[in-house]
Amino acid sequence: MSLLLVLDLIGTFVFAISGATAGVKRRLDLFGVLVLSFVAGNFGGITRDVLIGSVPPAAISDWRYLAVSVLAGTITFYWSTAIDKLSSPVLVFDAAGLALFAVSGTQKALAFGLNPLMAALLGMLTGIGGGMVRDVLVAEIPAVLRADIYALAALAGAAVVVIAKPLDIPPTVATGLGALLCFGLRMMAIHRGWHLPVARRPGPKKHASDDEAIE
Amino acid sequence: MSLLLVLDLIGTFVFAISGATAGVKRRLDLFGVLVLSFVAGNFGGITRDVLIGSVPPAAISDWRYLAVSVLAGTITFYWSTAIDKLSSPVLVFDAAGLALFAVSGTQKALAFGLNPLMAALLGMLTGIGGGMVRDVLVAEIPAVLRADIYALAALAGAAVVVIAKPLDIPPTVATGLGALLCFGLRMMAIHRGWHLPVARRPGPKKHASDDEAIE
Amino acid sequence: MSLLLVLDLIGTFVFAISGATAGVKRRLDLFGVLVLSFVAGNFGGITRDVLIGSVPPAAISDWRYLAVSVLAGTITFYWSTAIDKLSSPVLVFDAAGLALFAVSGTQKALAFGLNPLMAALLGMLTGIGGGMVRDVLVAEIPAVLRADIYALAALAGAAVVVIAKPLDIPPTVATGLGALLCFGLRMMAIHRGWHLPVARRPGPKKHASDDEAIE
Repeated sequence: MSLLLVLDLIGTFVFAISGATAGVKRRLDLFGVLVLSFVAGNFGGITRDVLIGSVPPAAISDWRYLAVSVLAGTITFYWSTAIDKLSSPVLVFDAAGLALFAVSGTQKALAFGLNPLMAALLGMLTGIGGGMVRDVLVAEIPAVLRADIYALAALAGAAVVVIAKPLDIPPTVATGLGALLCFGLRMMAIHRGWHLPVARRPGPKKHASDDEAIE
Repeated sequence: MSLLLVLDLIGTFVFAISGATAGVKRRLDLFGVLVLSFVAGNFGGITRDVLIGSVPPAAISDWRYLAVSVLAGTITFYWSTAIDKLSSPVLVFDAAGLALFAVSGTQKALAFGLNPLMAALLGMLTGIGGGMVRDVLVAEIPAVLRADIYALAALAGAAVVVIAKPLDIPPTVATGLGALLCFGLRMMAIHRGWHLPVARRPGPKKHASDDEAIE
Repeated sequence: MSLLLVLDLIGTFVFAISGATAGVKRRLDLFGVLVLSFVAGNFGGITRDVLIGSVPPAAISDWRYLAVSVLAGTITFYWSTAIDKLSSPVLVFDAAGLALFAVSGTQKALAFGLNPLMAALLGMLTGIGGGMVRDVLVAEIPAVLRADIYALAALAGAAVVVIAKPLDIPPTVATGLGALLCFGLRMMAIHRGWHLPVARRPGPKKHASDDEAIE
């Protein structure tokens, strides 16, 4: 089992927990929770594989992705009270999953011959795709579209992998650096409340508290 | 025209009715209703075909899937009052469609060389995919995520097809048995009110009636 | 750079503006707005390419689609007040984009050997797909499902391209005619308030004003 696969499975596990948590919150039954776990953990990778023509996608042909997702979903379902208390660690795991997916997704896209720019974007998609569909399935605007420096952190990590290639930096080092950058940016954004600008709009004046709730 | 294709088209017809009914309820125009019919009847199969690399998907390259969907949508649009009165028969047809799609989807995935576990899951996806996207398009949480023994019935039917293969049971028999099991489970769940557990959560106490409405 | 590519990029630009406008309205941050721009401008074409087996899709492998989308998103983000004032021109551009995508999508599907009926439907999907996902991502029922003669105009334009082929009409002429028909139908629908019928339903009487708001 390669190091990259291990990292990929850890990322799947972490995102599957986030999917299961969203399902438990809406009082879905066990099966619904497991479906959300699988979708949140694997949709980004599946979409990337379909787009680069690598079918059937790894998450479909390799049973370990399913096993990890079901494990994460079952744990969350039966110990959701404990997971709730862990909300800060979950944010840390989520940032780690984002970092792992962004770099592994980019490397896979590069290996399939995509140009560097699109490879970085597919890496970002691998990182954010699962969470987007998780939110769509529970009828919400995806958090990633408004979260503080989330997709941007994934893109930064992916960019490191892409830039490292022509510079002859070994893939292991580039992967590590990219993942660290993504993880660091995301943690800083959480702790310092960094966020990107929102367009100013005319019209009814909003209360400051409204703005904060939205941002 | 093979027996499997006939069963597939019947399943498409039944699910297309469910999509059209959802569209009529939200007062979409004729075209919107037809789009929802096609999506509900074919999205599961299209996704399965894309994931196993069978492109263009059958629902795109074979006009009969479209014809059946448009027929179902048009009938529902012009006779929606009559369809409403049929709600119990529609549930029966829907269970039949789920059963047909689950077994035919599994067999197609097996034929494309997927391992048994993932073939069964793709069979389940074929059965539940159309309904999921139908609900997403009308901005609701997919019913399958919270319905009584819905996806699980599809998975059980798919499992029969997968298990029958190494046992040298003829595909026709396995298909029949799997479809019957799925159909039977789903009908029992409807009539007896079976459902899967929902995670217990702390926080504001809910009224019993709320829980029932959600479950 | 072929004429078709130019038309395709103009269509992408126009739809990307519609995506960015939806994002700005919901106060997404800059990155969320850019993601919606890309999705609205390219999802239809990406789905078409995946379904006909042309992977990686043009919007992924050709950087110009991304550049055009980011440009449109950035302009909308920083000048959203000005774009608001342009709402009538934006409707015109949107109709133009729909027309361009419908005919170019149909021609690509024909070139990949699809039968004429499904080629026309994939052309329609190319035109309406981006807007559908844009609306799903902001948790709304897609406007195309209820808009006045929107998808139907796209289908009419696509049909011209399909019918012209066996008649030996040169592709350039067919493309022009199809795009004009789609554009004309859409503009007439806007100006005259044309719309398709909505199914009559029993139940609580609605106020006339409600009906108008929905239709």
